[in-house]
Amino acid sequence: MSAPAITLLTDFGTADGYVAELKGVLVSLAPGVPIVDLSHDIPPQDIASGRLTVARYWRRFPVGTVHLVVVDPGVGTSRAAIAIASEGRLLVGPDNGVLSPALFSLDARVVQLPVDAAASATFHGRDVFAPVAAQLALGATLEQIGESFANAVRLRTPPPFRDAHGLLHGEVLTVDRFGNIITNLLIREPQGMVKIAGRAARLVRTYGEAARGELVALVGSSGFVEVAVREGSAAAALGATRGDSVVLSSGG
Amino acid sequence: MSAPAITLLTDFGTADGYVAELKGVLVSLAPGVPIVDLSHDIPPQDIASGRLTVARYWRRFPVGTVHLVVVDPGVGTSRAAIAIASEGRLLVGPDNGVLSPALFSLDARVVQLPVDAAASATFHGRDVFAPVAAQLALGATLEQIGESFANAVRLRTPPPFRDAHGLLHGEVLTVDRFGNIITNLLIREPQGMVKIAGRAARLVRTYGEAARGELVALVGSSGFVEVAVREGSAAAALGATRGDSVVLSSGG
Amino acid sequence: MSAPAITLLTDFGTADGYVAELKGVLVSLAPGVPIVDLSHDIPPQDIASGRLTVARYWRRFPVGTVHLVVVDPGVGTSRAAIAIASEGRLLVGPDNGVLSPALFSLDARVVQLPVDAAASATFHGRDVFAPVAAQLALGATLEQIGESFANAVRLRTPPPFRDAHGLLHGEVLTVDRFGNIITNLLIREPQGMVKIAGRAARLVRTYGEAARGELVALVGSSGFVEVAVREGSAAAALGATRGDSVVLSSGG
Repeated sequence: MSAPAITLLTDFGTADGYVAELKGVLVSLAPGVPIVDLSHDIPPQDIASGRLTVARYWRRFPVGTVHLVVVDPGVGTSRAAIAIASEGRLLVGPDNGVLSPALFSLDARVVQLPVDAAASATFHGRDVFAPVAAQLALGATLEQIGESFANAVRLRTPPPFRDAHGLLHGEVLTVDRFGNIITNLLIREPQGMVKIAGRAARLVRTYGEAARGELVALVGSSGFVEVAVREGSAAAALGATRGDSVVLSSGG
Repeated sequence: MSAPAITLLTDFGTADGYVAELKGVLVSLAPGVPIVDLSHDIPPQDIASGRLTVARYWRRFPVGTVHLVVVDPGVGTSRAAIAIASEGRLLVGPDNGVLSPALFSLDARVVQLPVDAAASATFHGRDVFAPVAAQLALGATLEQIGESFANAVRLRTPPPFRDAHGLLHGEVLTVDRFGNIITNLLIREPQGMVKIAGRAARLVRTYGEAARGELVALVGSSGFVEVAVREGSAAAALGATRGDSVVLSSGG
Repeated sequence: MSAPAITLLTDFGTADGYVAELKGVLVSLAPGVPIVDLSHDIPPQDIASGRLTVARYWRRFPVGTVHLVVVDPGVGTSRAAIAIASEGRLLVGPDNGVLSPALFSLDARVVQLPVDAAASATFHGRDVFAPVAAQLALGATLEQIGESFANAVRLRTPPPFRDAHGLLHGEVLTVDRFGNIITNLLIREPQGMVKIAGRAARLVRTYGEAARGELVALVGSSGFVEVAVREGSAAAALGATRGDSVVLSSGG
């Protein structure tokens, strides 16, 4: 039985034809399997951004889905090419940490993929990863496509820490298109204030509790605390970027 | 019988993983139904732009198509979540006017969707609208998914008006990627001049009647008068933006 | 038997609804045929860029694929609308050179498409090309959709030339999203230096041979010599753009 979908996450952009070539391989080798674009707009060579995105979606697709991920600044160097089976999903891409979210499951298995001498030295997405994704989508097992691989790169989202005064210190993970500032803070109850860039954002449950234009914090859709402006851009208001410090004070 | 397609129109962009999460829900709940990306580049929270786009396409897809539209600045406030059946097509999204084009058909029916307590307060696209789109794509009826809803927000494109001198006054609705200026003017015969930003554009039938670089006006593909420069950008030449005034004078 | 895919390459962008309308036609007229987005981000009216992209992918898709290409600055003028059958693939679009890569095959056949009087004068993608693509995807022959056409526009990538000193002179074809500078140089062995913008780039086989940040040249995935910076942007470092001169000196 073929896969319910092959999904694509890349940093190729869509202006250059790389996505087109890669899809040509998929349609040729796995005809009939739906190709689902997730994003081609990961910032060029930004492994951290790709990894955070993979974390959001890899388990939301059904069992059997093949996730092809190509954010690959190390192509043509000694970095390995890998495939992962984890919680019934299959992932294919470079061994640089971008696939890490799938590696922490108890049943995760990893193989290293052979790289044919005829493969382009600059485009493993087309010549190595896409053919393997097609094979997996048609039912090949990990064992049929590579050799067991023990030392895959595992990157984690940095955890926040609590100081002696009970304040929770975290950082900005990313800023989304709406200007929402996504932090690494995880909380049980939305109460207290989040301090960021010299400003304080009141924790609320929904945008309905905020005035239009008010800076607030709330638990976002990925479970992390986000700093936001209702119908506006918190990132523009605060000038926040990845890595900036945030502090949660419970109560006042 | 399942839907010929679920289409997606959002203001999510594609850099953040929101589209990916939403598609995970669709592939999981409506396997085998083609997912068709229309755009994820509606300007953030720009309901007017989303509505104009919906007007262009909703009836061009075949009967049974499910149109999922998420431009939702009011998520987490009291705005309703709705689904519409209209001329055989089904539409799902927030009740903020973005779905209005489908509401003016005689057979249009609307239901309000329940919002589960477990739904994210910031991402109804994933937790409310996508599951309903999947249900509709698999054959659920409006009655099975919500309660009849009488007061859906209905927004209209502003009509032009004719003054005492017979001049037709309109406005710029939008500017497209090619720099064409799309107005709300509707005309029977392409004759006369369109005045905009202190310039006059001669009405022509096709670009073939214009010199390269000439500012002209013609009936565009959506039926409205457009101001254009053959193989150039009228918007760049005139600095025109949404809401700017345009005047049609028939004859000279 | 229906086509394995209809692919789409356009300069429409995705913010305006043009892609949406065109897809509505395809889903209506060729239900069940997968629609595969290749790019909608060809720079507006940039035929050269579209042609280079078509060259990359048109043969990578399986026999029977229909490639719809709409980069069409001459819409509404006397330029012809054409369809091509070449090496088992089918291509549909304007006769302006954008489809040239498929015209040099020995078995290439071309027909001119009729343009209905009801077709929009500004949007042949929706009203002329998409309906024909759908017909071809469902099995129509070229002869059923148009009249044989002998004089299709044939554009070629300019070839490099060798001077009296044995130096190979070429030019920059394009710059990709990663800042790699793609030239028209074709070589047998990666040795010597590429001179560009007053700098010299050593020819290497893979990025693994380059230091991080080093300017190098290598044979790219399309077979042409590329000038690149490992994990950086050569275009930003050199300020290179299309048409800039490059010179290959073999040995030192």
